Amino acid sequence: MNQLAIIEEVKGWVYEAGEKIKASFDDQLEIDTKSGRTDLVTDMDKATQDFLIEKIMAFDPSAKILGEENGQDHLQDVSGRVFIIDPIDGTMNFVLEQENFCIMLALYEDGVSQLGFVYNVMKDEFLYGGKETGVFCNGKPVTPPVNKSLSEGLVGMNQVMFQRNDWHTQEIGKIAMGVRMTGCAGYELIDLSLGRRVAYISRLAPWDYAPGGVLIEALGLTMSTIDGRALGLEEREIFLAGTQKAYDECLEIANS
Amino acid sequence: MNQLAIIEEVKGWVYEAGEKIKASFDDQLEIDTKSGRTDLVTDMDKATQDFLIEKIMAFDPSAKILGEENGQDHLQDVSGRVFIIDPIDGTMNFVLEQENFCIMLALYEDGVSQLGFVYNVMKDEFLYGGKETGVFCNGKPVTPPVNKSLSEGLVGMNQVMFQRNDWHTQEIGKIAMGVRMTGCAGYELIDLSLGRRVAYISRLAPWDYAPGGVLIEALGLTMSTIDGRALGLEEREIFLAGTQKAYDECLEIANS
Repeated sequence: MNQLAIIEEVKGWVYEAGEKIKASFDDQLEIDTKSGRTDLVTDMDKATQDFLIEKIMAFDPSAKILGEENGQDHLQDVSGRVFIIDPIDGTMNFVLEQENFCIMLALYEDGVSQLGFVYNVMKDEFLYGGKETGVFCNGKPVTPPVNKSLSEGLVGMNQVMFQRNDWHTQEIGKIAMGVRMTGCAGYELIDLSLGRRVAYISRLAPWDYAPGGVLIEALGLTMSTIDGRALGLEEREIFLAGTQKAYDECLEIANS
Repeated sequence: MNQLAIIEEVKGWVYEAGEKIKASFDDQLEIDTKSGRTDLVTDMDKATQDFLIEKIMAFDPSAKILGEENGQDHLQDVSGRVFIIDPIDGTMNFVLEQENFCIMLALYEDGVSQLGFVYNVMKDEFLYGGKETGVFCNGKPVTPPVNKSLSEGLVGMNQVMFQRNDWHTQEIGKIAMGVRMTGCAGYELIDLSLGRRVAYISRLAPWDYAPGGVLIEALGLTMSTIDGRALGLEEREIFLAGTQKAYDECLEIANS
């Protein structure tokens, strides 16, 4: 099956999951906390992940799953086809804003990224694709963004890191045209893909960065850990992505 | 002329201005700086203000204007009918994101706020109204938001203030469920009106806070300077707004 056919298949799942999430706004959400007071999970996060896994298993029963919810957050073996799922990225926004959240999937094969899908449900902004196919936004090809320097653009930032000035993030923010905090990695990686940001720095799990990461790398943008190491799929990392110029500047400042 | 008729009149101007701004995306913007590198103004800010003033003058030649651009940023005398205009609130976003900016107007009479209009152009989210008429979002009445405490919601914050921990803003951010930075006062005051925020703190000019301020006060939310003084229309102020509970908490922490 070629990648364009896989894209069409996965897009169908994601749109269907988006409709289910929108329909749930009339229902009472069940909200739990995970690692702390502000780390939320709802019954819709779990139900959306279950729905996507069901679709994946029907599509390819041999595929492996790495997902944020339901205890599927570790994989021993990344050989073969692996789907990485964040059913609702930006759960806090989902609960408190009912917008600015994304459904996200990445497809890896033998540890190599193939396709990414990031759908901002309420904005109806859906980016998908990969290196082979190119990246599309709602069906239209995305042009690789201009290689702007840090001082020419906006930087998406993690609140806690910025507040504590971890990795000189305040210095980075001062050089940029401004700092934005949206509380949603998918939102930030879409904005980076479309040239609305020049960089993004946050602490992210593989399901937060892998789907958007496929897109930004296919568009000629760069990402790594904040100290310049390649990103694995094992654990949370301090994540840095940007245009090549802004990435280089951030890397130098962060590690100075 | 009753307020509902004025609302219909002004809505027409704002939608027309929004169409002109959207049409301008194909043209090359002329961008200048004002007070500093990140304080931008474009030819579209100026053209939009001129367009709105033309409409106001045709509607009421005796009306006074207070507007961000073109040297109309001070008024000696606020008697009679005063229109306060921010033609493009969030100019940085307009330039770098081509979204997350608002067209805003407020109508005051003899120094008393009457009507507010805040239009997020690209999201097509338009809030307008006042104490007498109630507040509407795209034609539907807005329900006053729940009186949540600070720990139950998101806080919109100014980047520089948060970075420097001015007025204990970092402490406020830690108590909240999260901090958001959008770079657009109109965006924040719409979100406050619709219950997506519990508080908002920034340094704002009258044209930044007056239009949204009319809306939030009509919805039972509270605003003042960060040290609890009433907001005038004279100068930039450190602005605090929120649900009554979150406002009280922020005021106490900021002044502790």
